[in-house]
Formats: sequence, C-alpha cells, structure tokens
Amino acid sequence: MQVKTNLDLNQVEITSDFWKHYRELIVKEVLPYQWQVMNDEADINIADDPQNNGQTKNSHAVANLKIAAGKMKGHHFGFPFQDTDVYKWLEAAAYSFSYHPNPDLKKITDNLVDLIAEAQDPDGYLSTEFQIDMPDRKFKRLQQSHELYTMGHYIEAGVAYYQATGNGKALEIAEKMADCIGANFGLEPGKIPGYDGHPEIELALSRLYEATHEERFLKLAHYFLQQRGQDPAFFEKQLKADGLGADRDLIPGMRDFPRNYYQAAEPIVDQKTADGHAVRVVYLCTGMAYVARLTGDQALLTACHRFWNDIVKRRMYITGNIGSTTTGEAFTYDYDLPNDTMYGETCASVGMAFFARQMLNLEAKGEYSDILEKELFNGALSGISLDGKHFFYVNPLEADPAASKGNPGKSHILTRRADWFGCACCPSNVARLIASVDQYLYAIEDDTILSHQFIANHATFDQEITVDQTNNFPWDGAIHYEIQNPNRSNFKFGIRIPNWSQNNYQLSVNGEAIKAQLVNGIVYIPVTGPTLTIDLTLDMQVTLMRSSNRVEADFGKVAVQRGPLVYAAESADNQTPLWAYRLNNQSVATTQFESQLLDGVTIVKLPAQKVAVESENAELYQPIQQAPMNWEATTLTMVPYYAWANRENGQMAVWQHYQD
Amino acid sequence: MQVKTNLDLNQVEITSDFWKHYRELIVKEVLPYQWQVMNDEADINIADDPQNNGQTKNSHAVANLKIAAGKMKGHHFGFPFQDTDVYKWLEAAAYSFSYHPNPDLKKITDNLVDLIAEAQDPDGYLSTEFQIDMPDRKFKRLQQSHELYTMGHYIEAGVAYYQATGNGKALEIAEKMADCIGANFGLEPGKIPGYDGHPEIELALSRLYEATHEERFLKLAHYFLQQRGQDPAFFEKQLKADGLGADRDLIPGMRDFPRNYYQAAEPIVDQKTADGHAVRVVYLCTGMAYVARLTGDQALLTACHRFWNDIVKRRMYITGNIGSTTTGEAFTYDYDLPNDTMYGETCASVGMAFFARQMLNLEAKGEYSDILEKELFNGALSGISLDGKHFFYVNPLEADPAASKGNPGKSHILTRRADWFGCACCPSNVARLIASVDQYLYAIEDDTILSHQFIANHATFDQEITVDQTNNFPWDGAIHYEIQNPNRSNFKFGIRIPNWSQNNYQLSVNGEAIKAQLVNGIVYIPVTGPTLTIDLTLDMQVTLMRSSNRVEADFGKVAVQRGPLVYAAESADNQTPLWAYRLNNQSVATTQFESQLLDGVTIVKLPAQKVAVESENAELYQPIQQAPMNWEATTLTMVPYYAWANRENGQMAVWQHYQD
Repeated sequence: MQVKTNLDLNQVEITSDFWKHYRELIVKEVLPYQWQVMNDEADINIADDPQNNGQTKNSHAVANLKIAAGKMKGHHFGFPFQDTDVYKWLEAAAYSFSYHPNPDLKKITDNLVDLIAEAQDPDGYLSTEFQIDMPDRKFKRLQQSHELYTMGHYIEAGVAYYQATGNGKALEIAEKMADCIGANFGLEPGKIPGYDGHPEIELALSRLYEATHEERFLKLAHYFLQQRGQDPAFFEKQLKADGLGADRDLIPGMRDFPRNYYQAAEPIVDQKTADGHAVRVVYLCTGMAYVARLTGDQALLTACHRFWNDIVKRRMYITGNIGSTTTGEAFTYDYDLPNDTMYGETCASVGMAFFARQMLNLEAKGEYSDILEKELFNGALSGISLDGKHFFYVNPLEADPAASKGNPGKSHILTRRADWFGCACCPSNVARLIASVDQYLYAIEDDTILSHQFIANHATFDQEITVDQTNNFPWDGAIHYEIQNPNRSNFKFGIRIPNWSQNNYQLSVNGEAIKAQLVNGIVYIPVTGPTLTIDLTLDMQVTLMRSSNRVEADFGKVAVQRGPLVYAAESADNQTPLWAYRLNNQSVATTQFESQLLDGVTIVKLPAQKVAVESENAELYQPIQQAPMNWEATTLTMVPYYAWANRENGQMAVWQHYQD
Repeated sequence: MQVKTNLDLNQVEITSDFWKHYRELIVKEVLPYQWQVMNDEADINIADDPQNNGQTKNSHAVANLKIAAGKMKGHHFGFPFQDTDVYKWLEAAAYSFSYHPNPDLKKITDNLVDLIAEAQDPDGYLSTEFQIDMPDRKFKRLQQSHELYTMGHYIEAGVAYYQATGNGKALEIAEKMADCIGANFGLEPGKIPGYDGHPEIELALSRLYEATHEERFLKLAHYFLQQRGQDPAFFEKQLKADGLGADRDLIPGMRDFPRNYYQAAEPIVDQKTADGHAVRVVYLCTGMAYVARLTGDQALLTACHRFWNDIVKRRMYITGNIGSTTTGEAFTYDYDLPNDTMYGETCASVGMAFFARQMLNLEAKGEYSDILEKELFNGALSGISLDGKHFFYVNPLEADPAASKGNPGKSHILTRRADWFGCACCPSNVARLIASVDQYLYAIEDDTILSHQFIANHATFDQEITVDQTNNFPWDGAIHYEIQNPNRSNFKFGIRIPNWSQNNYQLSVNGEAIKAQLVNGIVYIPVTGPTLTIDLTLDMQVTLMRSSNRVEADFGKVAVQRGPLVYAAESADNQTPLWAYRLNNQSVATTQFESQLLDGVTIVKLPAQKVAVESENAELYQPIQQAPMNWEATTLTMVPYYAWANRENGQMAVWQHYQD
C-alpha cells in the first residue's frame, strides 16, 4: 500500500477564507510578535514557570545563539531546548514566503541563518546551552539534554528554508548537524549506542533525506528507531557515568520519570500502548511512519498502526487533544479521558497532525484525514488566540477560573491564553502548522490525486492539471471542484468523505448525481476529459456525540459537533455554572453565522434545560425526593472550541449533561 | 449558651453490638498489632512513602524514644513527629482499660511511660529527632518541626493515661512538657513570639487544664490561639534566622507551602474560610472551641462558628470526609468536592469528630451531633479495616484500581487499606477515637442530660441516675431508653432527632406517643419520677440524597443513605464499570441484614439501569441518535461506605448517576 509519487503536486494556493485569515495572521502578527519575544523586546508576562520566576527576560533564545556565535557575552538562559523556539519560528517564516513573500522578513531570516551558522561548532554541533556553559557535557546526559531534539528542529527548519528560498547555507548547516550526529551515534566502536530523550531527530533526518536523497541520513534515522529502548537502562547509565547528582539535573525531577516517559522502556516495535509524554510519542510515531515508508520496514509500520489505534481509538479527546495528565504531560491508560485535569498540549495536537500526514503518505485511508482535520480545526488551532499573540500550552475540555485558582490539581489549566511560556514550545509549533497547511491537502498515489481536506485551494500538478476547490467550509458543507486537465491525462480524483458525513452526503459529477463506493472512506472519480466539475454536499447538521461508555468522564454526557468543528459552551454566552445545563434527545439545534463574533463563526443554539443555582444557605446534601431538581427550559449557546477563551475569563465546557 | 456540668456523668458502658465489636477489635488486634509495628517487629509493607523507601524498619518510633532515653544507640528515623504514633497508641490503650482491663497491656504501657520519662529532657522538652540528632535546633524551625504538636500528643496521652490508671508520672511528664513550652513561648522578652506549624498544643493544653485546673495551661493555650498569624512571616523569619537552606528542610518542600496551609496567614479570628491542611484546621478548631468554652472568648467562638459553617455547609463530603486535594492534604474552595482526586484523610475526620464534640460542649445543637455521627459511622470509620490491621490515609468517594495505577493525579488513592504508612498518623488516631467512643455519647447542660448518639449504652450519673439505651443501631431505627431516677431528681432528658429523620420519627414516653417540639434538633423530655421509658423510632428508609447544585462533581448524581450510613457500590457486588449504572426516581430499595457479610451489614439493593460495556472496537465517539444508550434493567447492590475495600481489590462509587 505504499504511496508512489508519479503524479507530482507543484503548488497549492490556499483560497479558504477561514485559513487565509489565519495565515495572514501568521504574517502580520504572529511572526513579528514571536521574533520580538525571542529577542527579549516584548513587554509581556511569562506564564508561570519556575525557571523564569523573577526574570526580566522574555525568552533569551536569540541571545543564546549570539553568545554561542561569540557575538555577545553571557550565560545561556532557559531550557536546554531554548534554541528550538527560534528554529520553529524560522521554519514558520520559511513556509510563509510561499504565500506571502516578504523581503523585510527575509533579511531577518537570512541573517538568522548566518547567525546559526556562526553559532555552529566546526564539527556541526549546535546546542547553545552546552556550547556556552558546559562544553564538556555534550551528548553525555541525553535523558535530559534534548541535543538531538534541538538539532532535529534546526534540520526541519533548514530543509524548509532551503526549499522555500534556495538558501544553500541553511541546508548545509543541517547536513553538518546530521553528520555530527552520525559521527557520534551508532553501534560502531567509539560511538554512543544511544538516542535522545526526546524523539524528533528521526523525523528530521527523514525530511533531510527526502530533500537531499543522501542515504546516510535515512540510515541514521532508522538506527535511532531501532536502537531506542534496546537497553532500557541507557539513560540511567549515562547519567551515572557522567557522575552528576540530581541537584545538577538539566531539568529538575526528570531523572525520576519512568522509562516509558521517553518511550525507552523497551524497543519501540515491542511497545503495546502509547505511553509517556504525549509529544514524544507522536514525534516518534511521525518518524516511524516516515522511515517505514522510506525503508519499507514492516515492523515499524506495524508499530505505527498499533500506536495509531491506541491513541485514536482509546486515548484521544473528541477535539483531537491528547495527554490525559499534567504529570509528565502524558498519556495515562485506555479510556481515561478526564476533561478538567487533562493536559492536551498544543504541541501534541500539532505532532498528531504530523503523524496523520505521514500515515496518509503511507496509506490512502480516510481515517488519517479525519484525524488530521480534527486537529486542524480543533485541538491544534485552540492553541492560538484570534489576535495571534496569546497561546495555550494546555487545552482542556472543561475549564473554570475558580477551579484553576483554587484546586492545585487544576492549576495547570489556564483559562486565558498566555503571552508566552518559560517552556515556549507551543507558540511556534502551531505557527509552523498553520503556515504550512497548504502541504496537508493532497496525497498522490500512482494515478490518483487524493483531495482529503475541505480547505479551499487552487492546486497545480504535473501535466498541466489544475484543481480548484471552492467552498465556505467549515461553515458550509457545499464543496465545489473544478478540474482542468488540458492534456486529457487519465487519472483518478479521490475525495475523502469525512466520517461525520458518511451517512448523509450528495455527490455529483458534471452536474449529475452519482453513487460511488467508499474505499477506506474515499470516493474515487475517474478523470479523462479536459474539464470536470464535482459537487459534494456534506452533512452540516448539528450532531450530539457520545463517547464509548468505557469513558467514565463523558458518561451521561454529549458533545456538540457540526461538520469538523466540536463546539464549546462558554460563560460569555450562558449563565454559570455551565454544569447546570442538560441537553436531551429532542434538542433540535439552530445555527447562525455571526460575522462580528470571534472573527466570524457559526454559533449553535440548542434547546436545553437548566436549574437555577441554589442558595449558599441551602443544605449541602438533602433527599432528592424532598428537593427535586427544578429544571427550566432554556437555550444553550455554543461556539467552536478553537475560538474559546477569546472573550471574558470564564467557564467553558465541551461535554454537556444529557437526558435520554 | 455555655454548657455547665452540674449533673455529672460518671461512667458509660457501651453495649452496642456494632461498637463493642470494634472496641474488642481495638483490644485484640489493633493495639497488639500497632505495638508490634512501632517496635519494628512486624512483617509488613509500608505504603509508598519517599522517606521510607528501601528501609527495612516498620516505624522505629519506639526505638527513637529508647535512643533519646540513652537505652539504645543510633539515629532518629522517620518524620519529626514520629513520636506521636506512640503517644496516640498509648492514649488508645488508656481508653481501652475503661472497658477491657488488661494487666499484660498495662505492664507494657507503664513501662512505656517510664521510657518516655527517661527520654524527656530535665527541662521537660521531648521531641526525639531534635534530642538525638539536632539538639541545637530545638524550637528554631517551628514551621516544620512539629515539636509542640508532638508534645501536645503526649499531653493528651498523659492526661488520658492518668485518668484511666491514676499513674501520676504520666501526668507529671505532661505538666513538665507544658511548663517547658510555657518557659519558651510567649510575648515576654526572651521568649519565642510564635507557635507550632501544626496546631494540637492548644487542645492538648486545654485538656491538661481540665485535668489539673492549673490556669497557666489554659492561658498558654489561649496565647497560642491569639498569637497565631499575628506575624504572617513568623515561620519564614525563623527559617531565615536559623540559616539552613531548603536542602536541609525537615520535611522536603514544606517551606514552599502557602501560609494558609498552616492557618498562619492572618490571625485566626480574621480567617474567613477553612483553608489549608485539613487536619491542621480541625485540630485548631478543636482547640478554639475548648478555649472559647473555658475562657468565654467570644471572638474565638465566632471563629468556631465561621469555620464550622464553611466546612459543614460548603466543604464536606457526604461521608464527612474533608480535604478536596492531595496537594497539601488540604481544603480547596467552596463546593469543590471531586470524588476521585480528593484526599479525605482519616485524621481529618477524626479531628472533625473532636471539633463536633467540643462544639457540642459549647452549645446543645443537633447539627454538631449529626456531624459527629456522620464521622463515627462513615468518614472516620472507613480508615480501619474489619481485621483491624489495615488502614486508609486517604478516603475517596470513588475509586478504581486502574485509575490509581494509571493516572498520576489519582496515585494517592489506595484501593486497599495499607499495613502501615511512612507517615503513620492515621492508624493510631482512628484507634483512639474508637476506644474512647463512650466519651462521645452525652453532653450535660445544667439540668439536662443530652443523649445525642444512638450507640447503645448503660450510663450512670450523679444522684444515682442511670440511663440504659438499647437498640440495634445502625441497622434498626428502634431506640429504647430506660431511665432510673431513684432519688426523683428533676431534670430533662434531651434526645437529638437526627437531621436524616426529622421528617419522620415516632416518640413515646412510658408507652404514650408524644409530639415534642424540636429545639435546635433536640427534643427535651422532663424526668421527675423514679423510672421513665422512652421509645424513639427513627426513619430507616433508604434515601437518595443529592448535593447542592453548586457541587459540580455530584451534579446529576445521587448518594444512597440509610440512617446515618452512606452506602457505596463495589465491584465485589456489581459488574464493572460502576459508572455504567443509573438510579431513578422510581427506585424503591430493599434491605437485608447479612450476618456473614463484612462482619454483619445491612445491604441495600436498588432497581437500577445499566448499559453493557461496549467493545474495544467500537468508535470512541459517535452520534448518540445513531447509537443510543442501551439501558437494561438491573439491580445495584450497595454496602455501608465504612466497610468498603474489605473484599476484592476493585472499583467503588458512592455517587450514582440519576435519571429524574
């Protein structure tokens, strides 16, 4: 089922109003703002982080590079992976040039590439904390050092920047890094038979291989995946050999995390469940899917399927968020999906989108596109505010400012997006996803162009084929395609029918209704003539969703979905407490597009019942027969989940009580 | 409304089968077992505690005293308050002599008193960690040292032992301690203007005052209550003055706790809400109620009422458990009562019983007795297993072994009682409560004998008055009293009508039904003749209870109560998952006494509905209209909450979904 690429995609221009808006935001607000922060020039509050307490620096990330390059004096500040904020920002900027050329920005990014080159050691090494403050400790504390993670993020940025601008130096830095890593890691005598505490280098080397076709990079990626977990004590042994105590940990407390936090408790092909730090899991999976495709390694492919199924079928929130606990920002166990103590890191949803994209490159299956869509419109997008200058690290499905303030088990749940974080992995990660969303719309397999997202676009392919997709998605379900095929090439045009519309959709080709069989969630339409129009009407009915009854947290509740969007109730629209509402099986929704609200959203109104809040003088407990619940008819107003927390600081709830 | 004690109670013999059983357990199992553990002679597992990791010692508590007494060599082991385990055990043993004289045990306890006397410094000081390992640090780190808490627990034990056995040395040790503390603490020049991090000394000094009538002990107790929180920075200043860093903390991490953890953020009479460590709060409140009664301090009385109301009306679980978070074993905020991440420490329920008893000595109000009963039959009693050798520290209202193992936010919730703990405050605390339960049955006010608990007993009073209460409570609601009054004294006999029966009870005096007005939940029956019989029939109907709709965690759910007992569903009786059941407003319960089950309990069976667990291959999320919940009729079987976790290791739930 390996996807081949005989029918090349040349360019995709996003024409979707929804996504154009976000992508312009990246150019106009997000990139300038983040550059300012990383240069410590912003007047902002850093969300609570012990490392940053009492510091006046915003980030110091660019300064760290300048110090490493010998252009500034001082010490490293921040996490060992502080450099990656800059690299992910550079990657996002590179993507932005594809839809918004910007000579001023390009001067900055070219200079930044020069700075990175100067910061790089002659052997290719680059991790500023170690270069500046502990050169003797390079590669000696991989459990916590994030050195390969850090360089991996540069490699991704370098490849993207080279591909976007042709800047050869950007690619050279990446190749030198990869060769430095190749010279230091492996099973050959004298090399470190290990791997990084945080997966990333595997997917980065795969991208470098795809850009350069240098086999050694793919082999190195494959090595890291095969070696991981072979010696479960590797990290502990390294720490012991390095001889430093817990008081000198790079990241305090990390040595006490279990081995599966790092997916290093056993070889990854033997791991039965998606355990540990959620971002690490999905970055690892993305690397596995890349290398499985590029090498044909069936054991890795099997592991990809196992991880995918465990995450998607048993450990994912309806919004696509993953990570059920703040302790280790981690997965917990199957069907454990608490909504108010969860983690749901933005980076984990971004990583899940990466994983889905790579699975789709392996196999044309609608289920991968369904999850990709879920992340793009919900779990990942929730990480950024409508103004582009505020970010969530944690994305809960239920939030209450009183709880976040008053219950320490919920203190990690912010109810307003923050200006920035001490550990600032998420802001630039969601930025690079949005800036590259054009790369997520098509997959090509042999003689098939698979259009699996309903993000309006104009795409050009080899053989002068063009595809125009027009729609007002996600607000409207009418999807129109115009295919130009002037050379009358023979190919198939595949369209994913989303899982939320498979029971109710209409499809017509050249104006004529057709019934086509779904193959793995996809309809295939043969194209032979010079033009073809396709009209697809998706089911945009508001739907009450329930979870498997194995999920305790959602039992007796429903979530509201319309198209790909999961909806949330907010106290900005509804009287608190939000838990005092219930929907029922008679609830027929009305919808309305509100152009002035939250940059334009379709709101959902549902007939509901609620109880009035009892007096503080009422008994805390009383017989329900003497004091029945006084349900009153009301309306529950809901907005798309991604847009929550852009108004007043209040309660939010995705899951609603339900009476059947 | 101060209660006077002109009508003295002489002796109470518990005749209740239920409580006799527990009290014999204390003598036969609990006291021998705990003595063995504290002497490091038991083959047991210590529940996970960082301080005890890898240690072979059970407790070392007696050894610490021997080392301090110079009878053994070695270092102190355990928490700074390790001594208190011994003292609370001694106190429990003292109480046991009142119903089970035991010469063998008395030899041990007399010797123990001798050992404690030898361990005590000439000036009265006794805290073995400081005596053995850091004599220079005495009273210098009160935030964490627990020195006054430790001596307070001895004072309680010494008073009890003296009262039970007449052992004068036991009382002398206590008086020397109190005088040592009085010599070191106060606002006079040269004294420490401070107080202990953990309240306890206030209530202990009050007890010592009541035993000795020495005003200086009461004044010292009053001083501690008035001084607490006057200088909110007192603890930090002391730590700073002592000059030791965080790495030398007596209890790691404790310096970072907020000031209200210790109820030291402001003067206690100014504190608006019951914040911080729950055990500290209720011990402080107990001390306040004692001193308010003994001194007439109205500000303290007002504070008692404010704390009582905040706890009972807004921060207490239906089982009487308190402490909504494991972080700091603390209260959180009003109506925040999560059932599966809570703390509900056994010691906090024991302390709440102390507080209720003292409030009852201040004011004859049924609400105090209601809560006392709630603790005795539910929240506190849950802390000990039916075999007397296993204990809960944390008492959840919902538990699942999979969650405790798989979700770090629930790892503090044990689903089996432990052999012992590194911090072993709870086992001996519940033991001393059960062994002294005879002291909780009556309050005397002027010319009134108030019988406020339905624990069968035979009591003798001054003027040759005797009261026999007979019943089969808590299984049966028929309560019979025989009062003998040979001297024809004129007095009133007050009986609390519990809040759970106030809408439905029958009362007859000498066989004649009467209607009596409730005054603060109490009926008062005049006694003039030589004999009087009273028959009270309480409402033992199974009742579905709901919480205030301000409590999110219980919204849409009910708890099952019968008499004073809150019931729990366990997987030993019901198919899992327990969350897949729901009760409804038609559910009519049947009850049955099962003599062979859980040492004899009345079980409750309720018609219910449940859904069959879905396949692991089912969709994690699907439209509820396409996949409605398939409710099936079933029966939910429930057992008293106190008896849970005495069978298989499984799920437990107090709150059940409810359909109205």
